[in-house]
Amino acid sequence: MFLKNCWYMAAWDYELIDGKMVARTLLEESVLLFKGESGAVVALENRCCHRGAPLSLGRIEGDCVRCMYHGLLFNGEGKCVQIPGQEKIPAKLGVRSYPIVEQDHIVWIWMGDPALADPADIPDMPYLSDPQWAGIPDYLHYDANYLLIVDNLADFAHLAFVHTNTLGGSEEYAYTTKPVSVERLERAFRVERWHMNSAPPPYHAKVIPNKTDPVDRRNIGTMLVPGIFCLETLFAPAGTGAEKGNIVEGTRQYRNYQFMTPETRKSTHFFWSYMNDFENGDRNISRSLHDSILEGFYEDKLFIEEQQKVLDADPDFSMVAIAADASLTHFRRVMDKLIAEQNAPTPPLRAVGA
Amino acid sequence: MFLKNCWYMAAWDYELIDGKMVARTLLEESVLLFKGESGAVVALENRCCHRGAPLSLGRIEGDCVRCMYHGLLFNGEGKCVQIPGQEKIPAKLGVRSYPIVEQDHIVWIWMGDPALADPADIPDMPYLSDPQWAGIPDYLHYDANYLLIVDNLADFAHLAFVHTNTLGGSEEYAYTTKPVSVERLERAFRVERWHMNSAPPPYHAKVIPNKTDPVDRRNIGTMLVPGIFCLETLFAPAGTGAEKGNIVEGTRQYRNYQFMTPETRKSTHFFWSYMNDFENGDRNISRSLHDSILEGFYEDKLFIEEQQKVLDADPDFSMVAIAADASLTHFRRVMDKLIAEQNAPTPPLRAVGA
Amino acid sequence: MFLKNCWYMAAWDYELIDGKMVARTLLEESVLLFKGESGAVVALENRCCHRGAPLSLGRIEGDCVRCMYHGLLFNGEGKCVQIPGQEKIPAKLGVRSYPIVEQDHIVWIWMGDPALADPADIPDMPYLSDPQWAGIPDYLHYDANYLLIVDNLADFAHLAFVHTNTLGGSEEYAYTTKPVSVERLERAFRVERWHMNSAPPPYHAKVIPNKTDPVDRRNIGTMLVPGIFCLETLFAPAGTGAEKGNIVEGTRQYRNYQFMTPETRKSTHFFWSYMNDFENGDRNISRSLHDSILEGFYEDKLFIEEQQKVLDADPDFSMVAIAADASLTHFRRVMDKLIAEQNAPTPPLRAVGA
Repeated sequence: MFLKNCWYMAAWDYELIDGKMVARTLLEESVLLFKGESGAVVALENRCCHRGAPLSLGRIEGDCVRCMYHGLLFNGEGKCVQIPGQEKIPAKLGVRSYPIVEQDHIVWIWMGDPALADPADIPDMPYLSDPQWAGIPDYLHYDANYLLIVDNLADFAHLAFVHTNTLGGSEEYAYTTKPVSVERLERAFRVERWHMNSAPPPYHAKVIPNKTDPVDRRNIGTMLVPGIFCLETLFAPAGTGAEKGNIVEGTRQYRNYQFMTPETRKSTHFFWSYMNDFENGDRNISRSLHDSILEGFYEDKLFIEEQQKVLDADPDFSMVAIAADASLTHFRRVMDKLIAEQNAPTPPLRAVGA
Repeated sequence: MFLKNCWYMAAWDYELIDGKMVARTLLEESVLLFKGESGAVVALENRCCHRGAPLSLGRIEGDCVRCMYHGLLFNGEGKCVQIPGQEKIPAKLGVRSYPIVEQDHIVWIWMGDPALADPADIPDMPYLSDPQWAGIPDYLHYDANYLLIVDNLADFAHLAFVHTNTLGGSEEYAYTTKPVSVERLERAFRVERWHMNSAPPPYHAKVIPNKTDPVDRRNIGTMLVPGIFCLETLFAPAGTGAEKGNIVEGTRQYRNYQFMTPETRKSTHFFWSYMNDFENGDRNISRSLHDSILEGFYEDKLFIEEQQKVLDADPDFSMVAIAADASLTHFRRVMDKLIAEQNAPTPPLRAVGA
Repeated sequence: MFLKNCWYMAAWDYELIDGKMVARTLLEESVLLFKGESGAVVALENRCCHRGAPLSLGRIEGDCVRCMYHGLLFNGEGKCVQIPGQEKIPAKLGVRSYPIVEQDHIVWIWMGDPALADPADIPDMPYLSDPQWAGIPDYLHYDANYLLIVDNLADFAHLAFVHTNTLGGSEEYAYTTKPVSVERLERAFRVERWHMNSAPPPYHAKVIPNKTDPVDRRNIGTMLVPGIFCLETLFAPAGTGAEKGNIVEGTRQYRNYQFMTPETRKSTHFFWSYMNDFENGDRNISRSLHDSILEGFYEDKLFIEEQQKVLDADPDFSMVAIAADASLTHFRRVMDKLIAEQNAPTPPLRAVGA
């Protein structure tokens, strides 16, 4: 059901400071995350192999965690290294551990076969640690399948109706703009869309001085497997040729990362950060944008969680695609293909000479 | 499971004034009800055919409703008439619409095959618009199958025990009165029951001047398919021959309509109005009766919702009928027969000469 | 799934004084308990045979209970003895009744075949009515299978970790003490464990004058089918030879009864009383101990209810036994065997000469 052989965002790094244990269900597995004494992040199956007690009720000791039910101690690889009152420990006593990489302020986890986990496959998220870009990383919980959130991000037409008064700006957006291009990549889609000579949308107008000067707006959205969205937004003074690559004074840009990590098949961890390149130390710009984007996300959340309820109520319902669903449809195909490949039985070796 | 080829009460007309949208699950289908600009009530499947978003999050435009997720517009027949940003609309894109009749302040809906919907089959509810009868239409939600409420109304003996101190008046009622007649009709039952020379029950005593004068009480209850109850109650001064048709000064009458519309197999919309013919403009009579009846309904609700829990806990439990269950048993047979007929496969045509 | 042919604790006797009706689900059957006029405790299926209404919404009349939906009256054996408005009562109309024995302030119930119910099989609980022992009987509800609570009591090592600062006293307990003996009995296990020359654990220190004088602590725990735990605790001044049977001045003892009665396969009624032999009329000793023990029980409850959630989340998970689980494993085997025997089909009689 899930693509397991893949890197997922498990947490922001700030969630694990000062020995805090985070118990988080990822792809329907309960995982305990913590940073041990050595500074390395440990990810273990959150279930003692002895009686099933959650290790998140336990205690960190160095890079180990002790189950506080009967005192078994597990190291960072999940191996049981102490049973109080018992000398011999069976060699294979332990819990599952998960490959972890900490990078760009993100804790990445590999939920599938550890032998296939290659840190080189982790996408770079450069803006998160670039001092020129300012934002406030945050988290939302969704009672909906992660792909419904991916779908939402795949069609910008929803900006016009769901976000008219927040992120969108006008219903006209849906009628007069179309994607310049929809690129169907092997493990992603990429959409570019321009909206020329229109009023700045409310969230942007709040943080700029000339609130009514018309702008040319460009959105480039890239959705990566398994549900990582990178949006590059540019607002240029209208008519200055931004669409031809001419970047003039007064152009402002945003970078928006959104990470959809399945909690269960019906709920999702949603990590995000919305960054700007123009606040120059004025943190109120970030704060205003954070609030505006959150307001928009709650507008999405209402629709997406209602969608989930509608689908739950009638599993026989099938959606109908419209022209705007090209990128959505492509991404679902990509995911289906990768999951099918992952779950395919290994082909038997052919006997020589047969 | 449900009788679909049948008219059900979907709403009171007052629920739809001023462009209010009502999303209501009926027979396990989510339906959007609204009154468009033309004044006609529209009933549509509450689920956009595109991505499944509830249309009840949408916006009324004339006699149409616009899905506010990606902007698709549906007319009163459910046909999609606009897709923002897309020229051609596939001919069969749309959502289901339901036949509606507005009559006697009731919005009636047909949940089955529209070709079979005949407004002439809708029962008249004359007292609801007769100025001589005053009442306050209202609504209750039940966490119980609609037939458990129908059953409750089928045996007046429960008045003696459930409603001793409210609608019943005494436990003696169960021992000394019996139905004069139980009529088993093709799509209904009709029960007539008299209680002679007893104190007025509390709810009635509250709204009359001579609170202790004995009365002769007559109840005639008619239950129509699929669960519409009409109760005609008469209180005459005791011994004045009401049972022989002699109606004297001081006789007071009530009309009680109750509509049980399945929400799901385990929950019910319960619409009701309790009317009197003697308040002569004193609205406090209606208000007192409304409160008294509601108090009684909550007494029923406690038992009926507990019954549902008992049945849920043990699906193997089967009830045992007693003598008083004649009308109840008849009505269940009527419903079973109608549902079986509805679901029967169309008989194949016999080959000529075979 | 349950051992039905067995006596279970259904209630404390104090719960049924003054005509109070207790509706309690036992082994997934809803049972109504009450003390009739004669003083005998009656236990009936809590579901009227007529329409399934809970009898707990009814009214006690003598040793009978009347269903307050339509007035059917049931006697203490469950037989229907009156139907208001109906002369003849079908002979077998009635509800199930359960054998009951009231003894040692406990209401014992037999949930299986009444023909096999022998009061002689009920274990004596002598301390509950012995004036030398003082305690406060109480009740807790668990959202967990009863055997998870049994398991918890089977391994005292959990005292060291779960109850370090309440009932245990130190983590050292888990490392330095071991059971003197684990007796595997036919319908029970018995464990004896000593902890020599240590500080009194916090709950005990609170109620004694010399709070830091080292003690020798002995626990003897016996677990009886189907989940009845009797703990005999002794604290002697350290080094006075209690382990050799030498009982000196200043020795204090506790008796702890715990009764695990399944409500459902995932929830449990937990009755308990913790008694001391030294308060001599100072009820504050009992009260302090009651609070301390309850504090400890909530520490257990946290782990045990989390365990249940972990097991629910993954029915394929199987626990791994460690050396300390000997008594736990034995008891599970005893229960499995008794349940299998109970559910075995009666062997057919062999035909003579076949």
